[in-house]
Amino acid sequence: MTDHTYKAYDEDLGALKTLLARMGGLAEEQLARATDALSRRDGKLADQVIADDEKIDALEREVEEKAILTIAKRQPMARDLREIIVAIRIASDLERIGDLAKNTAKRTHAVSEALPRKLMTGLARMGRLAQDQLQAVLDAYAAGDAGRALAVWHADEELDALYTSIFRELLTYMMEDPRLIGMCTHLLFGAKNMERIGDHTTNIAENIHYLVHGSVLTGERPKKDTTSLTPV
Amino acid sequence: MTDHTYKAYDEDLGALKTLLARMGGLAEEQLARATDALSRRDGKLADQVIADDEKIDALEREVEEKAILTIAKRQPMARDLREIIVAIRIASDLERIGDLAKNTAKRTHAVSEALPRKLMTGLARMGRLAQDQLQAVLDAYAAGDAGRALAVWHADEELDALYTSIFRELLTYMMEDPRLIGMCTHLLFGAKNMERIGDHTTNIAENIHYLVHGSVLTGERPKKDTTSLTPV
Repeated sequence: MTDHTYKAYDEDLGALKTLLARMGGLAEEQLARATDALSRRDGKLADQVIADDEKIDALEREVEEKAILTIAKRQPMARDLREIIVAIRIASDLERIGDLAKNTAKRTHAVSEALPRKLMTGLARMGRLAQDQLQAVLDAYAAGDAGRALAVWHADEELDALYTSIFRELLTYMMEDPRLIGMCTHLLFGAKNMERIGDHTTNIAENIHYLVHGSVLTGERPKKDTTSLTPV
Repeated sequence: MTDHTYKAYDEDLGALKTLLARMGGLAEEQLARATDALSRRDGKLADQVIADDEKIDALEREVEEKAILTIAKRQPMARDLREIIVAIRIASDLERIGDLAKNTAKRTHAVSEALPRKLMTGLARMGRLAQDQLQAVLDAYAAGDAGRALAVWHADEELDALYTSIFRELLTYMMEDPRLIGMCTHLLFGAKNMERIGDHTTNIAENIHYLVHGSVLTGERPKKDTTSLTPV
């Protein structure tokens, strides 16, 4: 690349990162509000979350278009090319996190007033943990800090363990009181959504590693959805 | 592009389409085997499905790398650029379909021998329908046929309706016999996986439309996960 192309490329990349920061902030907020809506059974807040999801979808399309055009125009190589590939991938993970927040919010309307408060605590805790992890990985991306990204990657185990314990807890409540089955099923799907948000957060962490080191993060992935193996 | 670049571009695109055809065939097979494994509680088959998932993951990385390099080298515009963007997106959907098949297969080990056969029929039907839809959309992509893609897009409603009816059916079984709660929960997640595979299939259909017409498919999306709204 010539000096001129470099400058133009840096500007394109800067614009891309600004879009991603906006997407990340929005995804964090959607996750926080969805957990809050379901925990407090706030239908109005849930509707706002559902309506706002299209903002994230629109930002993803913007990131993708800008990224592809930048590759076509500037023909970046090596690390420069990686920056753009990673931007596309992170946008895709953030879009999925938005979808999962929206699906969680939707369940607010299905859960009745009569839901015992204790059933909700586990899910609210998962929501907060998923949010902390997402915030940490977005900070790591903004700072280009692969070490912090790796810490997030390892911490996903905690979210998986919490999911497994909530899965068992909800099954127990269902068995004790079959009238709770329908509600607990919605909470199970809500908890599964949080677990999957954690997976997308680890995907982002892996991409930061790839961006900084140019290699794929190896070793045992922390992610293990052990509930799919829970014998019944 | 010069004549020479065009020829080189066509070769790159051909290689990309071959990779995608292999990925598609593999995703179809994984889906068929996962449904089969869970329906017949065949743990050995389930293990094969779990092990083979990494083949799809590897193909996705190959598609992505080849696509990005083709953009950087050939600087395609308009329809040529769309071909490549669409290849990246379809590879991403096929990879997710592979993940969902793997998650379904995993549940085979959790479901005991004592599971009443009637509980399984709905899920097996969903699996077959999801597979038919996937095959149809991959045919539409190979043929560049936006009309057939649109038909698949509309037919997803059927899969959603089936999911809603299975969701209700499983809840009823759980309420009638709390000993079935754990198993039915696994089947619920299995059915949800099939419903999500249907969503990825409609994503592929939307991308075929975009490829052929250069515009985003408008109108009411057929996808409606109404179970998240089912009051309990």
